[in-house]
Amino acid sequence: MTLILSNQDVEQLLTMRDCIDVLEDVYVELSEGRGVNRRRSDCLVPSPRRGAAYSLKSMDGVIPKLGIGAVRIDSDIVTWPVEGSNMRRVKVPAAPNGRYVGLVLLFSSHSGEPLAILPDGVMQRIRVGAANGLAVKYLAREDAASVGILGSGWQAGAQLTAVCAVRKIKTIRCFSPRHDHCEAFARDTSAVLGIEVKPVRSPEDAVGAVDIAMCATNSVDSVFFERWMRPGIHVSSIKVPEIDRAAVKRADRLVIHTHDDKPLHVVANNLAVPETAENKGWSLGEGIDFASTPTLAEVIAGKAPGRRADHEVTCFINNLGLGYQFAAAGAVVYRKARESGVGHELPTDWFTQDVHP
Amino acid sequence: MTLILSNQDVEQLLTMRDCIDVLEDVYVELSEGRGVNRRRSDCLVPSPRRGAAYSLKSMDGVIPKLGIGAVRIDSDIVTWPVEGSNMRRVKVPAAPNGRYVGLVLLFSSHSGEPLAILPDGVMQRIRVGAANGLAVKYLAREDAASVGILGSGWQAGAQLTAVCAVRKIKTIRCFSPRHDHCEAFARDTSAVLGIEVKPVRSPEDAVGAVDIAMCATNSVDSVFFERWMRPGIHVSSIKVPEIDRAAVKRADRLVIHTHDDKPLHVVANNLAVPETAENKGWSLGEGIDFASTPTLAEVIAGKAPGRRADHEVTCFINNLGLGYQFAAAGAVVYRKARESGVGHELPTDWFTQDVHP
Repeated sequence: MTLILSNQDVEQLLTMRDCIDVLEDVYVELSEGRGVNRRRSDCLVPSPRRGAAYSLKSMDGVIPKLGIGAVRIDSDIVTWPVEGSNMRRVKVPAAPNGRYVGLVLLFSSHSGEPLAILPDGVMQRIRVGAANGLAVKYLAREDAASVGILGSGWQAGAQLTAVCAVRKIKTIRCFSPRHDHCEAFARDTSAVLGIEVKPVRSPEDAVGAVDIAMCATNSVDSVFFERWMRPGIHVSSIKVPEIDRAAVKRADRLVIHTHDDKPLHVVANNLAVPETAENKGWSLGEGIDFASTPTLAEVIAGKAPGRRADHEVTCFINNLGLGYQFAAAGAVVYRKARESGVGHELPTDWFTQDVHP
Repeated sequence: MTLILSNQDVEQLLTMRDCIDVLEDVYVELSEGRGVNRRRSDCLVPSPRRGAAYSLKSMDGVIPKLGIGAVRIDSDIVTWPVEGSNMRRVKVPAAPNGRYVGLVLLFSSHSGEPLAILPDGVMQRIRVGAANGLAVKYLAREDAASVGILGSGWQAGAQLTAVCAVRKIKTIRCFSPRHDHCEAFARDTSAVLGIEVKPVRSPEDAVGAVDIAMCATNSVDSVFFERWMRPGIHVSSIKVPEIDRAAVKRADRLVIHTHDDKPLHVVANNLAVPETAENKGWSLGEGIDFASTPTLAEVIAGKAPGRRADHEVTCFINNLGLGYQFAAAGAVVYRKARESGVGHELPTDWFTQDVHP
């Protein structure tokens, strides 16, 4: 049977600890070249909606050690609203019932069979958190205890869960330009983590004097600047533009998620304004030599150094997600779903065929 | 509702005529850059089976004119058996019930919603036939009436259906090294087409004196050679290695399917023998300047010439399939399925989500 799983199922089955552990294991496989990842691609065409584009995004990964392959697909109506001085990349829930569209398909690399189909949202959030959590584990000071975070959205909670899984965190400060949103986020997250998250009124109040500064925004402009760096800090981001170039240059040790500098963009030639917006975030990575900067997987595999001294300034840019991460998290979710009988079962024959294609 | 369709549904809903017509229309969009295609990628890793590999293949395309996007995925156990002097690429039906795994996912480019999920086999066959049929339409002589085909497998029937849809064909000769298979194929296909397909004992008997020579094999070695070319012939292939380089050079007019010279291969570094086999077929394309050779879409759009004179030797290499073709054929299948109430309906909410991923 092929399983249809929901975000609720994934939320129930996949803990941050699970995801950190499986990624730590299989990043070694990736670094050794035994696991493979196909770079994310974005097909972008005009949308009938004003100022919007249609984006069909995909990424693949295979982990022979776990016997699994994954394809992750997002089918999004994308907009680029400007809020304050920052431009953000925001998806419109245009599917029936006002919903978003992102899917993960899991396959057995032993038999080829489709194992499961599930929405990508919860898994996406946990795997981003887990990657940045692993970066904290290898790059932040052992005694790091204070965290400041910029952003109070969907990704911010997972970033905090992850950092608390790898360090004994005592204080957390949070800033978002939408203060009411930030307050609600702080309240909810404090309850979940059992550590007070304090909403503050300016970005420097959040990240100006902490051991670990985390960015978790939708911004395509920079949000973290060099003036907030101090000896021993670890700065973490979930996308290329968040950390200003001068701050990146200041780091003693820079680690990225993958050597690929950006997604493969396949863009219709009649796509107007949005293309500029789409490129803006990525262009902020132009000062970085992605090919020669060590990756998180290389650090975990011992091929590149992690933090070497307490006073070092370290920086992790989660520059691009990997289909490989969905294979890893998917392997855990699929195993646990089978063990616990979670999910809708559909006949595998619906998703296989008797003809040699 | 999201539709689950079967190969039988596609067989019933998608005619060769439909597929030729929709591709002819949307290849213009592709050539003009309003439609987009993301090049096929193959992730290849070792398989526990001896001499086999696991291949996770994907390709995407979006056609705004039809409001549709498609992702096509194949999850295959691949082997490279040698039969006679030819090496072939053969998939093993290792999924439950001895089945193959290939899927097409269709999305609305207006709302993002998942419209349908279906196996790729029948659609794959028809779209390959339709592309080569369109090449015959634009490149073969108007009065072409005799066809010779090399191969008697799954693709060969669609090639013959397609050529008969665009030219008044009177005679068809077929060769395959497996003569009993060839005879059965000839019998079945004669009945379907209403034109006698004559099985012959050598490749030159099949293609040595015809107006249109078609290759439809799994071979990763060449099967059609220069000595069989004569003035006015159109030679057609469904993959790069089939037509020998000297024969390709001899053509007055060479047209390819896409400027991409090969799939993006992402290969595990511990994959041994099969990688050489995998590269063999593609390496035979090395003498061709794929970037500057006109594509079928450019010929259809009038940006590159088709046949200019009766004596010209023309050649079409269907060098690489496009996710775009699955979007085109998928748009037809989805519309007709909706009109006729075909397919299993599943709640679209199973494949969408309320979180911004």
